[in-house]
Amino acid sequence: MNDYIQPVELAKAYRLINHGPTTLVSAQHDGMENVMAASWVCALDYGPARLTVVLDKATFTRALIEQSGHFMIQVPIASQAPLVHHLGSQSFFSDKDKLARSGATLFHLPDVDAPLVSGCAAWLYCELIHEEHNQQAYDFFIGEIKAAWADTRIFRDGHWQFEHASSDWRSLHYIAGGHFYTTGEVLEVSDVPSDTPGAPQG
Amino acid sequence: MNDYIQPVELAKAYRLINHGPTTLVSAQHDGMENVMAASWVCALDYGPARLTVVLDKATFTRALIEQSGHFMIQVPIASQAPLVHHLGSQSFFSDKDKLARSGATLFHLPDVDAPLVSGCAAWLYCELIHEEHNQQAYDFFIGEIKAAWADTRIFRDGHWQFEHASSDWRSLHYIAGGHFYTTGEVLEVSDVPSDTPGAPQG
Repeated sequence: MNDYIQPVELAKAYRLINHGPTTLVSAQHDGMENVMAASWVCALDYGPARLTVVLDKATFTRALIEQSGHFMIQVPIASQAPLVHHLGSQSFFSDKDKLARSGATLFHLPDVDAPLVSGCAAWLYCELIHEEHNQQAYDFFIGEIKAAWADTRIFRDGHWQFEHASSDWRSLHYIAGGHFYTTGEVLEVSDVPSDTPGAPQG
Repeated sequence: MNDYIQPVELAKAYRLINHGPTTLVSAQHDGMENVMAASWVCALDYGPARLTVVLDKATFTRALIEQSGHFMIQVPIASQAPLVHHLGSQSFFSDKDKLARSGATLFHLPDVDAPLVSGCAAWLYCELIHEEHNQQAYDFFIGEIKAAWADTRIFRDGHWQFEHASSDWRSLHYIAGGHFYTTGEVLEVSDVPSDTPGAPQG
């Protein structure tokens, strides 16, 4: 782990995925590990910090998560788009060397039961909250975020810094057929006074 | 409804939100209607087309959805950022004139039991799939997409056209504190041969 990678306060971990980036999901169990791409990842709560992810029954990564009870959500950057697309279009079940062929480099942290993909902008380490009905009926998984880290070159002081970095560092937003958009320009709106600052209202 | 607004095939409706835009959620019941902003909206399935949304118990829009069983998810554009921020930071419960003050213009369609916000890029009309445990424990709602429409100036032939329109038409990705990013540049990656084209693998 290089010195740029620093912990993110759990109460602000949702900000790492609030803009809807395409993610990489990784997991390990019993000496096996895998990484897949997932667009259907979403924040669920600030405190306790939680997120959701949709994992098809046909994915090997899902099987690893069901067995280990842990997974990593990471936010890849524009320069990793070919890697993300490879990890999202190939399956371990049809290519046992998928991970090696993708070119992904993994690293590990003490007491963290999931591999981390090198070169990403952010990592959210999750413990599976077992909800069998959601998992079976909807392929829908809930994770409690136990730790989060970001590369301080692109996320620091609780905020993304896309506007201060090169375009290679932008996060990715997948549509279909190899077609991504990168995160674009910043747009600031003056805060309206609110009863509950920061909380969504309605 | 102007001539630019055209139906989107349900199997491709997920593409309207796959890039993680901030949305507006609207609903109506018994002569009342409301609109709130929501970042925590995510695709759940292609077929049947489904999506998820997190709705805090403190929101009036949630109460309308629980009563009517229907809601509209819409994708606002950059020129609507002040409107989106207003609708996301004020609550009907503290300001009964919130909707009027926001400047939002609503319209209605026959046999559609939710109002539509004018000027957005896309609209997804959803029927609530009642899952009481998710709603109570996680503020988490599942909708089956019954119809979808998009403005053909920015979404046509099943694809977003951000790269061919002015920056005012970009969708929004909220972080916190009035800080949005707009959708950025297109990035194409050649398709890798896959067993299941289009489906996420792993």
